[in-house]
Amino acid sequence: MRVYNFSAGPAVLPEEVILDVQKNLFDYQGNGLSVMEMSHRSATYQKIIDDATAAMKRIMGLGDAYEVLFLHGGASTQFLNIAMNFCPADKVANYIDTGTWSTKAWKEAKKIGKKVHIAATSADKDFTYIPKTWELSENPAYLHITSNNTIRGTEWKIDPETPADVPLIADLSSNFLSKPQDFTKYDVMYGGAQKNIGPAGCAFVIIKKTMIDKIQPGLPTMIDYRTHIEKGSMFNTPPAFTIYVIGEVLKFIEANGGLVEMEKRNIEKANYLYNIFDNSDFYNGTVVPEDRSLMNIPFLLPTPELEKKFIAEATANNMIGLKGHRSVGGCRASVYNSQKIESAKALAEFMLEFEKNNK
Amino acid sequence: MRVYNFSAGPAVLPEEVILDVQKNLFDYQGNGLSVMEMSHRSATYQKIIDDATAAMKRIMGLGDAYEVLFLHGGASTQFLNIAMNFCPADKVANYIDTGTWSTKAWKEAKKIGKKVHIAATSADKDFTYIPKTWELSENPAYLHITSNNTIRGTEWKIDPETPADVPLIADLSSNFLSKPQDFTKYDVMYGGAQKNIGPAGCAFVIIKKTMIDKIQPGLPTMIDYRTHIEKGSMFNTPPAFTIYVIGEVLKFIEANGGLVEMEKRNIEKANYLYNIFDNSDFYNGTVVPEDRSLMNIPFLLPTPELEKKFIAEATANNMIGLKGHRSVGGCRASVYNSQKIESAKALAEFMLEFEKNNK
Repeated sequence: MRVYNFSAGPAVLPEEVILDVQKNLFDYQGNGLSVMEMSHRSATYQKIIDDATAAMKRIMGLGDAYEVLFLHGGASTQFLNIAMNFCPADKVANYIDTGTWSTKAWKEAKKIGKKVHIAATSADKDFTYIPKTWELSENPAYLHITSNNTIRGTEWKIDPETPADVPLIADLSSNFLSKPQDFTKYDVMYGGAQKNIGPAGCAFVIIKKTMIDKIQPGLPTMIDYRTHIEKGSMFNTPPAFTIYVIGEVLKFIEANGGLVEMEKRNIEKANYLYNIFDNSDFYNGTVVPEDRSLMNIPFLLPTPELEKKFIAEATANNMIGLKGHRSVGGCRASVYNSQKIESAKALAEFMLEFEKNNK
Repeated sequence: MRVYNFSAGPAVLPEEVILDVQKNLFDYQGNGLSVMEMSHRSATYQKIIDDATAAMKRIMGLGDAYEVLFLHGGASTQFLNIAMNFCPADKVANYIDTGTWSTKAWKEAKKIGKKVHIAATSADKDFTYIPKTWELSENPAYLHITSNNTIRGTEWKIDPETPADVPLIADLSSNFLSKPQDFTKYDVMYGGAQKNIGPAGCAFVIIKKTMIDKIQPGLPTMIDYRTHIEKGSMFNTPPAFTIYVIGEVLKFIEANGGLVEMEKRNIEKANYLYNIFDNSDFYNGTVVPEDRSLMNIPFLLPTPELEKKFIAEATANNMIGLKGHRSVGGCRASVYNSQKIESAKALAEFMLEFEKNNK
């Protein structure tokens, strides 16, 4: 039996994808070997990565103006790479700070000696909202945002505007491909795969070609995005199996109505929980309603003891991954693209039952 | 049907490992989810990475004096990290250059401004041998070697000695765990997983604890090995599924007699091919006999046309991955730990048959 998996990442994958990967694990489509064993220089593997790249562009509505990379290192490595590649010494890296991961992003830029400006922050209210205005520094290298805050449960509902000469860079890790967006507003998009598009171990980095000329000279080989652009993500051996599974998840998204349908499902799932918050004083959402994430839904119960009991009983009812991030406590349900509607429904029913029994 | 896979990496994995991973892919040991979906913060996953770490130490005969890390980024990222972590501005990074990958290692150190000294090189004979002597610079930060040269097919048969105050650092990517070695002679060992111990997408880095104090201050977070040591490879989401498969390969090594038995098998496999070179003027090994690798076996046929024909007929006979690296041409058979003896035997028989038909 499968559990209901509300983990924030690595996170639930579509059952049909896992079953198909399983079927092909010993002998991929009659090639006589597993993708785990397959040379990344083989024609069979080249088709796998090419198909994943093409699917990504189709889903996002991106054409030849963008490069899609699949890299080692997770989003945390990109915090360093973004600042190294795109912030020259005479410019200022601008960040909007919406908590934990966006804080890590600007701190890394600062750590390596870049000039950093916080264009806006929601620290004043414990990162429970998304700033609606921001002020760029003089001479900005870029504006960086975190589109969805996995730990705090806030989400950008708009794609922010920047002046034409200020690139917009976004960490899209935790709401990537969860809804239709105008991705052409962004100059660089990146994130870890392990939330919405695959297993852990791969970062996607999508770079508008006009940004390539802005890459700083003299960078270490693996940090320089040009290295990976020139070699189609294969300068060194890529995380080949993870990229294959990502490709399968992208096929799942396309086969299930693309981003329009993903958003529809994601709203339905999230509303099961948000409706409870709005009609209960037992469960309290921690985020202002207009900035609530469709992906990560943190909430509090009346006491820490009840939270502990809630998580224990949920686990006994086959629902895992509901503990809030250790930095903020409480509870959290992650309902990414691959989460089934029935999972959110089952959780909502359990929550109502638990409230009845413990009020 | 399974092919005979002689790819240099990603490379053949033990059939029993793939079958076990396949069996558990949809529901890992009754936990109701795939390891691909499993939170790296869960107790189940913590046991997976702890078991892999413990198995690695047992196999290598390492105790508490060493830290074992499983990181993103492949060996190419470690070329940068080694120099950043362990070469202070006032010291000199020493390298023995045995071709391609060791060349990349020292070039990266030089690229980021480190003082580099080539203590020995086999460039004079096109990297067809391993230098037997070397000369350290004044004030050496470390001596770096590449223990097996995947492209050239040479292998260190000894663990080199350095003065007590000169750390020995080795890229062990392509002969890791293929034979008994005194690993305690090394201060830092690293490599990509995708040759001897698992799928692509993970680097192992093994650091003697006495090296931790030598790590340079002020490094970027993800480059600083202390970041990963302090968090047990989980500062950010690790390549969790790849680490799981690595753990299964390590179990395979232990269940099959450990390094003593691995070496015995590897010698048997390699000798099927080397015996042909020694008794034929049709197939020519490119490496001096005393430095021949047990893992990667490059060879030439009388003409490029015959090589092309050889690879085509081998493929038709279900033997793949025999094309030499594009930088050197010719043919190459990789016979890592997980390669079955019957594969090497089948290749040898095919080679003799091909010689008979084409001489």
